[in-house]
Amino acid sequence: MPGVPRLQDIDSPLDLKKVPREKLPGIAGELREMIVRNVARTGGHLASSLGVVELTLAIHYVFDCPADRIVWDVGHQSYAHKILTGRRDAFPTLRTFGGISGFPRIAESPYDAFGTGHSGTSISAALGMAVARDMKGARNRVVAVIGDGSLSSGLSLEGLNQAGHQKRDLVVILNDNEWSISQNVGALSGYLNRIMTGKFYTSFRKRVETLLKSMPHGQFMARIAKKSEELTKGFIVPGLLFEELGFTYIGPIPGHDLETLIGTFQNLANLEGPVLVHVVTSKGKGYAPAEANPEIFHGVGSFDPETGKGVGKAAGPTYTDVFSETMVAIARENPKVVAITAAMCSGTGLTRFREVFPDRFFDVGIAESHAVTFAAGLAREGKVPVVAIYSTFLQRAFDQIIHDVCIQNLHVVFAVDRGGIVGSDGATHQGLFDLSFLRQVPNMSIMAPRDEAELARMLWTAVGSGRPVAVRYPRGAGMGVRVPAGAETVPWGKGELLSDGKDVLLVGIGATVSSCLMAAEGLRKRGVSAAVVDARFVKPLDSELLLPLVRRIGRVITVEENVLAGGFGSAVMELLEESEEHPQQFRRIGIRDRFVEHGTPAELRDVCGISPDHVIGEALRVCAAGKSFLPSILYGIRSRLEKIV
Amino acid sequence: MPGVPRLQDIDSPLDLKKVPREKLPGIAGELREMIVRNVARTGGHLASSLGVVELTLAIHYVFDCPADRIVWDVGHQSYAHKILTGRRDAFPTLRTFGGISGFPRIAESPYDAFGTGHSGTSISAALGMAVARDMKGARNRVVAVIGDGSLSSGLSLEGLNQAGHQKRDLVVILNDNEWSISQNVGALSGYLNRIMTGKFYTSFRKRVETLLKSMPHGQFMARIAKKSEELTKGFIVPGLLFEELGFTYIGPIPGHDLETLIGTFQNLANLEGPVLVHVVTSKGKGYAPAEANPEIFHGVGSFDPETGKGVGKAAGPTYTDVFSETMVAIARENPKVVAITAAMCSGTGLTRFREVFPDRFFDVGIAESHAVTFAAGLAREGKVPVVAIYSTFLQRAFDQIIHDVCIQNLHVVFAVDRGGIVGSDGATHQGLFDLSFLRQVPNMSIMAPRDEAELARMLWTAVGSGRPVAVRYPRGAGMGVRVPAGAETVPWGKGELLSDGKDVLLVGIGATVSSCLMAAEGLRKRGVSAAVVDARFVKPLDSELLLPLVRRIGRVITVEENVLAGGFGSAVMELLEESEEHPQQFRRIGIRDRFVEHGTPAELRDVCGISPDHVIGEALRVCAAGKSFLPSILYGIRSRLEKIV
Repeated sequence: MPGVPRLQDIDSPLDLKKVPREKLPGIAGELREMIVRNVARTGGHLASSLGVVELTLAIHYVFDCPADRIVWDVGHQSYAHKILTGRRDAFPTLRTFGGISGFPRIAESPYDAFGTGHSGTSISAALGMAVARDMKGARNRVVAVIGDGSLSSGLSLEGLNQAGHQKRDLVVILNDNEWSISQNVGALSGYLNRIMTGKFYTSFRKRVETLLKSMPHGQFMARIAKKSEELTKGFIVPGLLFEELGFTYIGPIPGHDLETLIGTFQNLANLEGPVLVHVVTSKGKGYAPAEANPEIFHGVGSFDPETGKGVGKAAGPTYTDVFSETMVAIARENPKVVAITAAMCSGTGLTRFREVFPDRFFDVGIAESHAVTFAAGLAREGKVPVVAIYSTFLQRAFDQIIHDVCIQNLHVVFAVDRGGIVGSDGATHQGLFDLSFLRQVPNMSIMAPRDEAELARMLWTAVGSGRPVAVRYPRGAGMGVRVPAGAETVPWGKGELLSDGKDVLLVGIGATVSSCLMAAEGLRKRGVSAAVVDARFVKPLDSELLLPLVRRIGRVITVEENVLAGGFGSAVMELLEESEEHPQQFRRIGIRDRFVEHGTPAELRDVCGISPDHVIGEALRVCAAGKSFLPSILYGIRSRLEKIV
Repeated sequence: MPGVPRLQDIDSPLDLKKVPREKLPGIAGELREMIVRNVARTGGHLASSLGVVELTLAIHYVFDCPADRIVWDVGHQSYAHKILTGRRDAFPTLRTFGGISGFPRIAESPYDAFGTGHSGTSISAALGMAVARDMKGARNRVVAVIGDGSLSSGLSLEGLNQAGHQKRDLVVILNDNEWSISQNVGALSGYLNRIMTGKFYTSFRKRVETLLKSMPHGQFMARIAKKSEELTKGFIVPGLLFEELGFTYIGPIPGHDLETLIGTFQNLANLEGPVLVHVVTSKGKGYAPAEANPEIFHGVGSFDPETGKGVGKAAGPTYTDVFSETMVAIARENPKVVAITAAMCSGTGLTRFREVFPDRFFDVGIAESHAVTFAAGLAREGKVPVVAIYSTFLQRAFDQIIHDVCIQNLHVVFAVDRGGIVGSDGATHQGLFDLSFLRQVPNMSIMAPRDEAELARMLWTAVGSGRPVAVRYPRGAGMGVRVPAGAETVPWGKGELLSDGKDVLLVGIGATVSSCLMAAEGLRKRGVSAAVVDARFVKPLDSELLLPLVRRIGRVITVEENVLAGGFGSAVMELLEESEEHPQQFRRIGIRDRFVEHGTPAELRDVCGISPDHVIGEALRVCAAGKSFLPSILYGIRSRLEKIV
């Protein structure tokens, strides 16, 4: 590589290895510049990717990918990795429809050893890969790169526990930036912090002193201990906790110092068994606005790279904003209400609640399972916990929802944000399963608001309901309607007929209600009269509203932003089966049996066949079928006869 | 209380507190005798309950329940607690229909602070209760009693991490018996073992020595360190790991020594913040057959209390037995196959596999989430992992099934044992959600065998399928059919018409196929001709088989041992909707929207309305409805017309 090595010459890690070590900081600078410039346009996970630029360079400088396997936990920090592994030119397509994913994907590159998106999977997956390697007698190295926030997730801790026991050659790089998504919480985080600040033994020493002083001759022994402690201090390594779990601990090492990182990684070759390398990085490193505000720059939309200011036009309050305000209003009125989140304080809009009611707010870190069982404990003692977790992450608490909340019929409110299509985060983050997995659980009720005013009403309703209940709402801006100031509620289990019609009945839920209204308007122009119902409740369904309409209109289309398997449409179909109603035509619109990749929500709705245009098309089809001369008449006759005989 | 205190005089913990401390061992003996005598008859979790007799006595001697809140993790060790808290006379009804549950239940007693059944919920729930207490300004104590096996579950570790951070007054009693269900695994277990054997510092010391020797003047410093270590040794408490996580550690203390237990618990009153009391017990304590074989006596059916020998008649091989044999046969032929379980080695029948292929067997402990992501890692590298987990515990891995296995379309085989009604373990253990929660996940396929021969065939099929696939089968004895010796498979996605008929089509899946066959026989005697289909696959459904039959027969009943919401019947209904088939009659039989309590499977099937008699009743009803003179003719006409127009 003649002249000054440039990022544009690096098409693979092999090219990187040709760069003289002292020239690597230049590459780091170029990587940062490229990441900031692109993410400013596409949006994405900026702060975490900036924080691991040197770490990524050092990894690819030392390890031999793709033979060596790097598992990027969560994966939102993988931008530098993508650029260095053959995706530099594709990088401008990041997170756009048909472009490269914002997360590692097996299908995207041989350098992506394992697809990620949710937290805490890397150690478990890497351990599986290490075991497979050993069974094959291969020699490749397996590396999990995991943030301190992810490390405290139950899955990580299970993986750590098993990896320490299995004694396989395995490297866990702990990327410690003192942040998960929000600022870290939990004892493990405190422990890591004490390691870094050199206060490792403070609490321990205090306890030994207390213990000694309570013993006979305690004062004397405490003096000896103090002496001995001074002698020992320098030798006692930090990371004893990891050592006790079977890992060799190395660190803490400075995570933006390429020399140290490379030297350390090269030395790993001499170590056997599981090794944990504790690397300290700064989230947002090298980009002043992100360094100053890593929480805001965790995941961003487009922004001005010069100032860091968002450039997206203000689209009015989001559902999350309305949740935020309503929670504060509810908590003012009902002192029993507490709020819980799992490292999504800002994302779920609970920052304001935390400010106003610090003693009633609990961020449990990336620990969705614990969040739900913790809520069940609070509910058991009369509190009304509102658990705010994104739809996709709530999947982590499925068993706790069944076992701890619903079997005991405890009053826990689930604020399920990011329900439905979320857009550019792609397959791992779409909230497309919640209606199905929540609906099957006995004692659970589910609401979904068609606009932000309904969200406020539903939250008030849920908090007053006395039972397990989920309110599911989408990512992004609301419909721009006025949100009621006071404590309005919706009638329990009641849907709403928004516009009547005679040819076809469109039943929407949540965000799809507006699609139904738009479709009805389109149909009207084509001479088709569509009734539109907002079901409001996925469970219990409003049979008193739905059944007479189904009977009268005879052609029914349900529309949902959820998988069709076991979803909202199936719930309506189940109601009809139980009620022995046989509409002449019944069609469900929703996500067919597939994962939905990244793109804008509009693009994805179009691809998935759930846009208003699709509703119109389907409605025209069922109406045409219904107009065949005989069946509609026969249906009416049969339907009446069945009631008689 | 005059004379010798007897168990029969103890109706509540208040009565227990009147017993002089030195007389408590007598009560312990009576408790053991009562537990053994009853469990010998009803079956149940014997070994764990015997192991905590003294612990339970000490807890109720010191703490003031129900004001003080005891959360029994898993809860299968709560028999002595139940007897001492007003349920002595009800104890003979344990686990029987309408009797008391084998687990704590809020609804059963004010002394049951929190319902349990699955592992690892106690710390999270107790923390929630402690927070609620502090918010109310109450002073009651909250105690979680958790086994060492449960402690390493991700949920427990999340709870521990949060509890250490929150600094609430909270007591965690670690009941360390070196067993979860099977013998314990994992680094944490090794750590606890080192504490107990006094080998706490061995590994650590070795590492410090190595480190020092590699430094300049290392030999000299190592000598100083050795000296200093000798000085320090006596002062260093064990349990540093827990201390570093914010807990005050006390222990290890002998768990069958009432004096020590009571003294320790009384002293807890002087401590603030989270405390972990490490108690060492023996599983099965006081009953020789259980002490000798705690794994067998973890959960037992009825047995002879004198000998410990099972008295239930040998009902022929269970599904689990057939899984056990088939796995060994498959692994002999396919060297890529590995087996994974989560502390259910014996329960899932993998003991034989472990013996024959110790290097290909992985018990990850109570860590279902990790088990699945670990499997995904293995699958990514070309292994074919078979993950054997009970249906109810697989709920813990829902997100990992979606995120790590199915999004990446990796070939992981799920052997879902205990699918359907399991009987006397009750609501927390029924496997009634799996068809719904697995079916909704894209890329997942699901089979369920109607007998043990089909189970063997389906396992061979799954292992050869190259994709994510679940085989779901029930608890207990098979149908007594011959199991094929060789590598037979079932055709992918194909159901089977077992008997044809013209009046009604019964579609069964798994265990309900035999109910359908019995119902068809009963219907034949009543002059009704029923066709019976074994769907075999819940996903993909065999539309080529089903649709023509539905069209021809017109009356359809699906039967499943799963919740109706989003279950198998809904899958069939969805297929009909997608195919625009409108049968004249369509009914689903399965579990309506409710949790199913404990009882014999036959009792529960009857209560839930899914017995063969219910199928007969429903079939007669739909046939009667179908016989009304007009609709059936009209249906035929309409159905044909719809195909034309």
